[in-house]
Amino acid sequence: MCEGAPAVKRIFDPIHHFIELSTAEARLLDLPVMQRLRRLRQLGLAYLAFPSAEHSRFTHSLGALAMGTRAFDELNRSGRDVFGSPENAAYQRRLVRAALLLHDIGHGPFSHSCESVLEIRHEARTADLIALPDLARGIADLDVDSRDVLDLILGDRQSRYPALRELVSGPNLDADRMDYLLRDAYFTGVSTGRYDAEQLVASLRILERDGKPVIGIDRRGVVALESFIMARYMMFASVYFHHTTRMFEHVLHAVLRDLWHDPRALDPAEEFLRWDDFRVLGALDGKQSEAADALRNRVRIYALAAEFNAERDLHAFEACDAALRARFGDENVWADTQAQLLHRLPFGLGGETTVWVDGPAGAVDAREVSDLIAKLSGKAYWRKLFVRRANSNPRDARRLCAETLAARPLASSD
Amino acid sequence: MCEGAPAVKRIFDPIHHFIELSTAEARLLDLPVMQRLRRLRQLGLAYLAFPSAEHSRFTHSLGALAMGTRAFDELNRSGRDVFGSPENAAYQRRLVRAALLLHDIGHGPFSHSCESVLEIRHEARTADLIALPDLARGIADLDVDSRDVLDLILGDRQSRYPALRELVSGPNLDADRMDYLLRDAYFTGVSTGRYDAEQLVASLRILERDGKPVIGIDRRGVVALESFIMARYMMFASVYFHHTTRMFEHVLHAVLRDLWHDPRALDPAEEFLRWDDFRVLGALDGKQSEAADALRNRVRIYALAAEFNAERDLHAFEACDAALRARFGDENVWADTQAQLLHRLPFGLGGETTVWVDGPAGAVDAREVSDLIAKLSGKAYWRKLFVRRANSNPRDARRLCAETLAARPLASSD
Amino acid sequence: MCEGAPAVKRIFDPIHHFIELSTAEARLLDLPVMQRLRRLRQLGLAYLAFPSAEHSRFTHSLGALAMGTRAFDELNRSGRDVFGSPENAAYQRRLVRAALLLHDIGHGPFSHSCESVLEIRHEARTADLIALPDLARGIADLDVDSRDVLDLILGDRQSRYPALRELVSGPNLDADRMDYLLRDAYFTGVSTGRYDAEQLVASLRILERDGKPVIGIDRRGVVALESFIMARYMMFASVYFHHTTRMFEHVLHAVLRDLWHDPRALDPAEEFLRWDDFRVLGALDGKQSEAADALRNRVRIYALAAEFNAERDLHAFEACDAALRARFGDENVWADTQAQLLHRLPFGLGGETTVWVDGPAGAVDAREVSDLIAKLSGKAYWRKLFVRRANSNPRDARRLCAETLAARPLASSD
Amino acid sequence: MCEGAPAVKRIFDPIHHFIELSTAEARLLDLPVMQRLRRLRQLGLAYLAFPSAEHSRFTHSLGALAMGTRAFDELNRSGRDVFGSPENAAYQRRLVRAALLLHDIGHGPFSHSCESVLEIRHEARTADLIALPDLARGIADLDVDSRDVLDLILGDRQSRYPALRELVSGPNLDADRMDYLLRDAYFTGVSTGRYDAEQLVASLRILERDGKPVIGIDRRGVVALESFIMARYMMFASVYFHHTTRMFEHVLHAVLRDLWHDPRALDPAEEFLRWDDFRVLGALDGKQSEAADALRNRVRIYALAAEFNAERDLHAFEACDAALRARFGDENVWADTQAQLLHRLPFGLGGETTVWVDGPAGAVDAREVSDLIAKLSGKAYWRKLFVRRANSNPRDARRLCAETLAARPLASSD
Repeated sequence: MCEGAPAVKRIFDPIHHFIELSTAEARLLDLPVMQRLRRLRQLGLAYLAFPSAEHSRFTHSLGALAMGTRAFDELNRSGRDVFGSPENAAYQRRLVRAALLLHDIGHGPFSHSCESVLEIRHEARTADLIALPDLARGIADLDVDSRDVLDLILGDRQSRYPALRELVSGPNLDADRMDYLLRDAYFTGVSTGRYDAEQLVASLRILERDGKPVIGIDRRGVVALESFIMARYMMFASVYFHHTTRMFEHVLHAVLRDLWHDPRALDPAEEFLRWDDFRVLGALDGKQSEAADALRNRVRIYALAAEFNAERDLHAFEACDAALRARFGDENVWADTQAQLLHRLPFGLGGETTVWVDGPAGAVDAREVSDLIAKLSGKAYWRKLFVRRANSNPRDARRLCAETLAARPLASSD
Repeated sequence: MCEGAPAVKRIFDPIHHFIELSTAEARLLDLPVMQRLRRLRQLGLAYLAFPSAEHSRFTHSLGALAMGTRAFDELNRSGRDVFGSPENAAYQRRLVRAALLLHDIGHGPFSHSCESVLEIRHEARTADLIALPDLARGIADLDVDSRDVLDLILGDRQSRYPALRELVSGPNLDADRMDYLLRDAYFTGVSTGRYDAEQLVASLRILERDGKPVIGIDRRGVVALESFIMARYMMFASVYFHHTTRMFEHVLHAVLRDLWHDPRALDPAEEFLRWDDFRVLGALDGKQSEAADALRNRVRIYALAAEFNAERDLHAFEACDAALRARFGDENVWADTQAQLLHRLPFGLGGETTVWVDGPAGAVDAREVSDLIAKLSGKAYWRKLFVRRANSNPRDARRLCAETLAARPLASSD
Repeated sequence: MCEGAPAVKRIFDPIHHFIELSTAEARLLDLPVMQRLRRLRQLGLAYLAFPSAEHSRFTHSLGALAMGTRAFDELNRSGRDVFGSPENAAYQRRLVRAALLLHDIGHGPFSHSCESVLEIRHEARTADLIALPDLARGIADLDVDSRDVLDLILGDRQSRYPALRELVSGPNLDADRMDYLLRDAYFTGVSTGRYDAEQLVASLRILERDGKPVIGIDRRGVVALESFIMARYMMFASVYFHHTTRMFEHVLHAVLRDLWHDPRALDPAEEFLRWDDFRVLGALDGKQSEAADALRNRVRIYALAAEFNAERDLHAFEACDAALRARFGDENVWADTQAQLLHRLPFGLGGETTVWVDGPAGAVDAREVSDLIAKLSGKAYWRKLFVRRANSNPRDARRLCAETLAARPLASSD
Repeated sequence: MCEGAPAVKRIFDPIHHFIELSTAEARLLDLPVMQRLRRLRQLGLAYLAFPSAEHSRFTHSLGALAMGTRAFDELNRSGRDVFGSPENAAYQRRLVRAALLLHDIGHGPFSHSCESVLEIRHEARTADLIALPDLARGIADLDVDSRDVLDLILGDRQSRYPALRELVSGPNLDADRMDYLLRDAYFTGVSTGRYDAEQLVASLRILERDGKPVIGIDRRGVVALESFIMARYMMFASVYFHHTTRMFEHVLHAVLRDLWHDPRALDPAEEFLRWDDFRVLGALDGKQSEAADALRNRVRIYALAAEFNAERDLHAFEACDAALRARFGDENVWADTQAQLLHRLPFGLGGETTVWVDGPAGAVDAREVSDLIAKLSGKAYWRKLFVRRANSNPRDARRLCAETLAARPLASSD
């Protein structure tokens, strides 16, 4: 009645079901640097708007590995020798799995907020961490070169494996995004974030563009790509830019700046690794600070006064912003333009970063093939105005915005 | 150990779970005119492309009733007295349920194909059928006026209940569409057809526009409306205009014309009611006809040569069409422009048919509020070229299209 | 912009997502003998109780192929050389797929009812049909021996491939059942019919028992096997033995006996193939028969008077049966003992037909390893009493049963 | 373009979709004592076996409120005046919601482990916490009596509302369990934990038993009750008693005993409220303790040597236990008999705690009506033997168990 020892480790996941790891990968996963990811939430403070968004970067890292493996295996069987000899292909498979498993280790607590306070990008951290003895040994045990791993994670243009680099850190068809959209949709319960992952993965192809290999899709995958782009939009609109999330991220920024007076405080890797979301929340306990209390106990310091989703609303946004500041004072108004987040927008398919579609006469820009993708290209806007509850009346603020808008010519004729 | 008699009938449905019917509604449902809907498939021939799309108009009619009831109840609780006195509201609730239960009874076999052959619209049939003694009695038992029911189904502008009319037969926020998108997505397995029905229904509001009540949404429902419009697009792109479906619909047209030489053959209601999808398929058995055999046994008479999804592809489409006809002859080429289906397109939000959004200064066009909806408004295109397999080589046809395209200036510079 | 020709055909299915077919398999699928399965419903008349149970044996046949392939591939990778040389394994993979695709072709309209009227089992039909020229050629094109295919479908003890025979027609771990439980649960919406298919398939192993290979599971699969056995139970309790379904099956029996006076009428294969569920329903149109009308228009001729689910209820069942017959007459009472269905019961894990579990000292009976499975072994009972509505009052009948039960000593003290 | 202020707060949840709160309930939810539940995981350490089991008691508390409201509303409409006058019913509805929202506030970090170390039950804590000024005020604002709330949470037999007490803290049909089974199944991804909640809730009835009201189900709910009992079993077998979870809980016990030398350390409510799962994990950082390191970084100190799921395995279990101890020493073997958890077992339907089913002659024990429930009643067993990896070889340990078992007469003949 004894349990046999399995040759590989299988981990159960609601998105990918069984995720299989080799013995060496399982050992890597059990290192403290990986286990720490259980204490970083994938969506930071979004759980204050969507209570069930409590999932961690740990499960996402496993999911990215699973998704990247599905993509790799599909590419590998879609054409003859796309990854070279069987040995070369096996190496690249181990490599892309390693890179996806490790791609988030450089994140600090509440990642993006942390980065701007500590003035160091998570990708840069990764280089330091990968050099730590434990991790270096773990990577060596995977039988991959840690330099190759780092190149994929950092998206190094000089990487010897440009197609894998796109799978790990590309701007569109990366396994990172393919996993987190499904995962964030599942854990928030926002079903509109789902896309046709089966068809998208089945359509992946390595195409040629200016003599270099790029990851694209075949013609049958266009509808799946449309669904992927729409899902990105829906998750930004519903979750990532939800006004409650944005408001608490604003508060967090002040809290972190207060917590780490010295932006170099976490430079030593050992110190950095000791910090996670939960330790930050613990450190706020007992602080005599409005912001600390707000974060720990979900005190909504600000109220939403108005929001604007159309590009043409810029003047309306500015007019309301000015009116609110005139009434309540600059210190009681927060205008969230999300300018700093524009690089994460789903529709930035311009220039370098479009998706290529296989065609009879070579690779074609997805915007040529799909009206829908063409229309959804370019920036999207989620501008919001908040007022501080302590020193203003949210109802007054909303009425002021309505009056300001009513006094203007119609937005559409701007 | 005996089972008690329930006061109401509960029917289980994968989309809405329990659907509750009053005793009178359950009796109506058991009339032959309703049971016949079990023999009309909701998606006609789409099962030849998506094998599991075998669901009927019967389950959809129940689902439309369920969805309409959810919408009605939400509207009713969203404001004081939106439906008048409690008695008036109760009447209107019975009425909208009756209309949705009956809204598809006028469909003939393979509905739209049938209509163009028989030169009579399904809505028109409905008037005849509702006057049949059985049904008239069933409707009277529901304690609603059959004239009111008919007005809602036909979308009569003079209906005494304009808001209910929109719920039953409106161009956007109708319970018909709200159910069939979810249902078609479920039964085909095309998950991208799902939208945020919970939020959309919760956002429904009766607004005023030019002094008349219209059904719109409140400001919090904009993202759900975006998801709804995207889901419509995805279902058209993936399922309703799938090339295999379109091809067999083309074949069906010939079959029906052959079956009913006299377009008036089904004018008598009794004769009309005897026909359904399954009887048509039965009637094809033993016919010495290529088309009949094709439909019954899924013989793909045509092969797809090229398809074009962007508006700017019109010239490319015409050039390929001309090249194919020159090579294979007119009788061996079918150009599917879907001109006849443009009225069903999801993005026709122009003029009369936009969605209104509640705002501080009155109802606003959804296109003003959402860049995404503005971008998705207007027509969508799914043009396809087919060649007859018997007299042409599909591979040659595809190569010919590729050469034709390569010889032209780039599509994007048209 | 032309679509490339795919090497294999991919079919979309809500349960298994993409199902891939080779070119020869796709051609086989397009034969009339397979397309006919679209006109046989997987659950016969259950749609009269669960309206959305409209799915066909066609989609189930594809699903069984998909499930069998997953199982085969898992077995193949679970041990060295379980299927012999790579060529042998490839042959067996083609073979098991062919057998599962074809395993239901011998079903007549409403299968089990049809069999008892026509006095011929569907498996026996299969031998005739497989010999038809079209099908013989199609099977030859798959590069498998039609004798081997037939052995698997018929469950021939002499089959050269005993493990595959279990996968196709075994009493427990067959791909047929693994697919239909998931499928019936999905299309009825009865979520309790789902089981842990991922884990069950991942646990499949070829074990040795008395020197012969049998399909069993490894120790880690016991909980999944428990979930599988529970799902079978739930589907029988909720769907397969639902009183409405059972009642209409009873009516159907009379209808079919009336339709085919001569039980040999469908013996010629050509005639047999012309019949399907829809043709039967069509043939009922216009018949002056209570039963025909009941089936076509869901007229509930009988009402449920009492049902009994526990073994110890036998005497109670018999007492109520006697009381009903005394009051309403034999011709107005139908006692459904389901005796003829006992062979389909989920818990008949006795004797030959248990599931074997891998253990350190050889294969062990699942009932040894799991208390739950031991408890669930043996027969299950769903006895029902119905009265004819025309000549009895259902309310009176239920009251009569209640009085009969109240007059008896407590059931538990029987 | 300003957002209107909603009268009620709606929170989105993947299980129940929108959960609506009154303004006073929303204020209660934002109190620190409730927000703290975000830092207690619903499944304690199970995330070390199921990585995605990171959901908190906070979302479960909301879910219990939602499920209890569904149950209450169904009971309320199932019979005339079951909850007395409209005012009384409205009071009881507010009451049951309050009690379910608050039912888990007394849990310490990793609840059950914490309780045994601190020698105080979470229910007892609740009385202290409810008396704190903030919470007392919050409860008063809900317009319910805090004494009534406490009675429901503590399951006080003297409660004025015995039916509500069952809904909150009963042994079977409580909203707590109804929510957590669905929730734990969703967040672990273990789909077999789902049951037919729709039908179960729709079947709830207030019955009479010995002159007192009890919550039971009507006859149509028996299959749903079976599914509920099976789901409980599956979740225990798959998740709650997973060997990895159990092993880390064993380690945790040592850690907590070390952390709180004085079992009275957390007696003051203010100190108690400062502790949560995350603070415990934080407190382990830097500790020079094998157990602390094991928990923080998932070091598996023990390996599973054998497990036994059948009652009859007791002697086998003891024989293996003795053999392991003889070989490796007592300090290197941990025998997990789960004796302390037997009160949580799903099948303890004996005596006081069965489920009653409505019948023509009064309430009947569910075991009378369903063979399945009768069979599943009684205890279930998941006994496990572990060895310490540092001082033993897991492979040797497993082999030793196999040999021990092989040397014994067959388990089944015990």
